[in-house]
Amino acid sequence: MSEGLVIVGSVARDSVITAEGSRERVLGGSAAYASIAASFFCTPQLVGVVGNDFPFQDIERFNEKGIDLDGLKIDDGRPTFFWKGEYSADFTHRKTLEIALNSFESFDPHLTPDQKNVGCLFLANISPKLQLSVLRQFTKKPFVVGDTIDLWIQQDRSTLLDVIRMADLWVVNESEVRLLTGDTSLYKAGRKLLDMGCRRLIVKRGEHGATLFQDNHYFSLPAYPTLDIKDPTGAGDVFAGALIGFLASREKEPKSFELIKHGMVWGSVLASFVIEDFSCNRLFEINFNDIKGRCRTLLEMISVKNMLA
Amino acid sequence: MSEGLVIVGSVARDSVITAEGSRERVLGGSAAYASIAASFFCTPQLVGVVGNDFPFQDIERFNEKGIDLDGLKIDDGRPTFFWKGEYSADFTHRKTLEIALNSFESFDPHLTPDQKNVGCLFLANISPKLQLSVLRQFTKKPFVVGDTIDLWIQQDRSTLLDVIRMADLWVVNESEVRLLTGDTSLYKAGRKLLDMGCRRLIVKRGEHGATLFQDNHYFSLPAYPTLDIKDPTGAGDVFAGALIGFLASREKEPKSFELIKHGMVWGSVLASFVIEDFSCNRLFEINFNDIKGRCRTLLEMISVKNMLA
Repeated sequence: MSEGLVIVGSVARDSVITAEGSRERVLGGSAAYASIAASFFCTPQLVGVVGNDFPFQDIERFNEKGIDLDGLKIDDGRPTFFWKGEYSADFTHRKTLEIALNSFESFDPHLTPDQKNVGCLFLANISPKLQLSVLRQFTKKPFVVGDTIDLWIQQDRSTLLDVIRMADLWVVNESEVRLLTGDTSLYKAGRKLLDMGCRRLIVKRGEHGATLFQDNHYFSLPAYPTLDIKDPTGAGDVFAGALIGFLASREKEPKSFELIKHGMVWGSVLASFVIEDFSCNRLFEINFNDIKGRCRTLLEMISVKNMLA
Repeated sequence: MSEGLVIVGSVARDSVITAEGSRERVLGGSAAYASIAASFFCTPQLVGVVGNDFPFQDIERFNEKGIDLDGLKIDDGRPTFFWKGEYSADFTHRKTLEIALNSFESFDPHLTPDQKNVGCLFLANISPKLQLSVLRQFTKKPFVVGDTIDLWIQQDRSTLLDVIRMADLWVVNESEVRLLTGDTSLYKAGRKLLDMGCRRLIVKRGEHGATLFQDNHYFSLPAYPTLDIKDPTGAGDVFAGALIGFLASREKEPKSFELIKHGMVWGSVLASFVIEDFSCNRLFEINFNDIKGRCRTLLEMISVKNMLA
């Protein structure tokens, strides 16, 4: 199998307000979060665009994590994609206060010959039409993980379902899988999306964890017990980024149900760190031993011994 | 340690309306559900009261399950406790349409000398004052599992907290642990209730599963993937009943964290059956092999192999 991981999505400046404080114009965007998380496992190639206001320090932070930036365009004519949002006190809901696409408006990624040949692709949240255009550039089908947001379910459901059917693993929030299928039960909604042609599905359930659906098999993982949340932004992108970063690091192995489970454990742990501070800050403070420590705790949280033995 | 299990709570006639249909005056009540679930593991002694309208067929159904009815009083002067409720289409909310305490109004259980000496006690949902009065009748402290509803958190929080502190394991809904502690985060709320003096805690999270808290340890179990729910009434009582029934069947073993995990697996599986039909009907159709089959599936749903090995 081919080497490497391409991550396509947004790189942004975020202004965020939570019960724990606020930050102005900090590093954000689905591809930024996902690439930083993936960088703990492999060398991700970030494909995105930033504007003329993007701080050099954040380019340096990407470099520090070994992220390949050949695919990161700089649009000198406009500022970076900007999002401002506020979370409810319990972090379960968020309201967009301001959004400006800026340089992201004309984002139309063209992959390099090298990128078109990688083994893994993460389609972070961009429009389904762009996701499709990226998929079609590949000369050899990579292992594709995809993500979306409710906006695209509402605005371009049909293209989105095409992309979901072409992907190997789709990652959604609980509310999104309900919106996509019209089913309110977690298990019914998940199974229905498989019936609609989704090959493998992970439903992210916030502090309730995440559930993997494939054929008639399920795997359910609780969230790591993070007690002090500061900013939940990017948790889902970090989960998916770590998951596919891990899968990319095992490029020679088949993408078995068991291997995806392991990826979910890594993803959950990385997500548990990123929400402890604003932006991606926490991911620049931790090392692989910190990550392994929480993996161990999470595995203990689901271990049952000698039952039905 | 002593043998046996006493279950104290309500026995009722329920009228239930769900998206899947409705039933009039069927068998219900927390102690009824819990005793039937426990009967798969041991011989529970049901302590409760029924009225002059309680059908003989339901007494026979208790007998069929080997439930000891020495503690079930019959009040000839009044009908049985009656509850009528309706569930939202997605089963997540319920509305009480009618309630009549009837014979349950003067329920004041007096345990027999034999009952006062059992090894396990389940305090199903009754007023905290009654729970306390039952607890005080014991000559030797049993292993106590307790349950409550939001009504008692609102009406008699102080006595309830006393009972929680005296119990060995408390079982609550997610919404109830939030109401009790004022914390919205699952993990924070759970930890806070431990800080308030609760020894061991299980938070029931509906289709998201259940989480056990003890000291600094957690165990999280997903719900069995039941696709066709007809009536969620009694799921929590069945969960707790099977759990303590299992613990009672292992009377010679210490009530370790690991043993309680096993009890949670049995409880989740029994709960997955009872919601597939109205009232307790489904529990009269299944045998222990059916239960073991679902246990196996549930254990597979949380198994991760060879990670960090």
